[in-house]
Amino acid sequence: MLKEFEIIEKIFKKTSSSIFLGIGDDAALFQKNKKEFWVISQDTLNIDTHFLSNTDPENLGWKSLAVNVSDILSMGGNPRYALLSMSVPSANQVWIKKFSNGFFKCAKNYGVELIGGDTTKGSLSISICILGEALQKNVLLRSNAKLNDDIWVTGELGLAALGLKYIKKKFDAPKVLIKNAIKALEKPQPIDVDMKKLAKLFNSAIDLSDGLVPDLNHVLNKSALGADIFLESLPMPKWIRENKAYSLVLKGGDDYQLLLTAPKSSYKKIIEFSIVNQIKMSHIGAMTKTKKIAIIKSDGRLLNYKEKGYDHFAE
Amino acid sequence: MLKEFEIIEKIFKKTSSSIFLGIGDDAALFQKNKKEFWVISQDTLNIDTHFLSNTDPENLGWKSLAVNVSDILSMGGNPRYALLSMSVPSANQVWIKKFSNGFFKCAKNYGVELIGGDTTKGSLSISICILGEALQKNVLLRSNAKLNDDIWVTGELGLAALGLKYIKKKFDAPKVLIKNAIKALEKPQPIDVDMKKLAKLFNSAIDLSDGLVPDLNHVLNKSALGADIFLESLPMPKWIRENKAYSLVLKGGDDYQLLLTAPKSSYKKIIEFSIVNQIKMSHIGAMTKTKKIAIIKSDGRLLNYKEKGYDHFAE
Repeated sequence: MLKEFEIIEKIFKKTSSSIFLGIGDDAALFQKNKKEFWVISQDTLNIDTHFLSNTDPENLGWKSLAVNVSDILSMGGNPRYALLSMSVPSANQVWIKKFSNGFFKCAKNYGVELIGGDTTKGSLSISICILGEALQKNVLLRSNAKLNDDIWVTGELGLAALGLKYIKKKFDAPKVLIKNAIKALEKPQPIDVDMKKLAKLFNSAIDLSDGLVPDLNHVLNKSALGADIFLESLPMPKWIRENKAYSLVLKGGDDYQLLLTAPKSSYKKIIEFSIVNQIKMSHIGAMTKTKKIAIIKSDGRLLNYKEKGYDHFAE
Repeated sequence: MLKEFEIIEKIFKKTSSSIFLGIGDDAALFQKNKKEFWVISQDTLNIDTHFLSNTDPENLGWKSLAVNVSDILSMGGNPRYALLSMSVPSANQVWIKKFSNGFFKCAKNYGVELIGGDTTKGSLSISICILGEALQKNVLLRSNAKLNDDIWVTGELGLAALGLKYIKKKFDAPKVLIKNAIKALEKPQPIDVDMKKLAKLFNSAIDLSDGLVPDLNHVLNKSALGADIFLESLPMPKWIRENKAYSLVLKGGDDYQLLLTAPKSSYKKIIEFSIVNQIKMSHIGAMTKTKKIAIIKSDGRLLNYKEKGYDHFAE
């Protein structure tokens, strides 16, 4: 895979004068009105790179939109409009109908309207541009994490990565777990909540698409800070914890949950928000001065997650 | 090529409640403020479908954005922001740098800022989402052409199609003409003008991407009208006229000029606007009640452009 950040940022980054935030976060921001920003992002899913040729088209329709929804949520925005560009090798109407069913189920779930796009002949590829709205005062930038902020994640991590591992190379694991893992991979579930309410409790956010460590690193780079992560606090399926398959959680990716940072003073409100809105929120660490990520085990020692083979699921 | 309109409109068209105009025109419209719309569109260019593998990357960078600019102009809007999603088979930095040079030259020319996007691994494909602004009172919809409206086109038609024909199968034609034709194909030049000033003179518009006849047919379908086109009035290179290679003009496509309709009362103002702004504008026909396109030759007879082989360039 290309280092997309490097290429985009080096070659395509130009100073933008009229907008609030351009390339370099999950989405760009431009003025909507005195109190709100438009949040805009575009993500592409390609066959063989982002999904396999035998992926269920309905799940693919869902996922194509869900990963874009996730970008809007991570800025503290609520998604609103989408444009869908599809390249397909042939006009397989059955496939396209199934894809559209999944797409519109996801659109309905997150309150998104499809307003445009095109369908062209080409290698199978889905490119979606999504627009959302965020309150200016609560917008969640990667660059806005503060020293000593608590680090939080939504949902559970590692399941989608487990599904991908299993598809690539079968291994011994409970059938129900594998079924859920493949579902997590093919039909990710970003949180479904009014982000205008959630965002005011936090300072910064990123969505977990590449994996906890690489995505947290983006926050570190933009905020010029470090992070301590408590391994035992990471929300993961029991099987992953018992098998110490931590690489799935730390570097697996495809979770499409949010990593957020918040002042310690928000702690109680976040717990309350989590209960009232039935959004699983886990406090997993804190921002530090070190400019590094330290994964701290329950015995107080550091996990050497950079070493290959620290667990047998690490590549 | 897929009939994109059919697939998009049948499978993806849903009634949108909160927006002014969704799928079915060159771009979608949603509220910007009391007087303006945001105009938004997304177009994809795929290798082997929209461009050849040996296309000059700088020209491709230009064209990728120019075809999207054209969609905004055709709604009466001025382009403003773009998001660029690129799929590339490998990280060829030289190629990407050249592509970006062309992209940014076009962006500078039309006043567009790049605000986001992504770069991923995949079959070579460029998907651009573009945002522009239009005055609500002057927005140019395909559905708004009126009976007896004059039909106008900007620029010159048929040159890009001539270039494509030549690349596919060489034929005897002046070298300078072929050079210009390939340039027209690879580096299209949508008009560069303040559309807020131009749009108030016209009722409707479409950009000429598929060819004069197929694109005019979209206007006819949306407006429930017909059109008389005067063959001799169509702006085309002398060589095309002398060789009666009319199919290049009527069905060639890739012109990225505008077809507009205007009340007869605008005639003088349009001529003045054309002179002051140095935009070539040709009056080529009128909207009729027939629901058909009639191409009228100088002797008053109809050109049977549906018949194969009406000129030796017709497919």
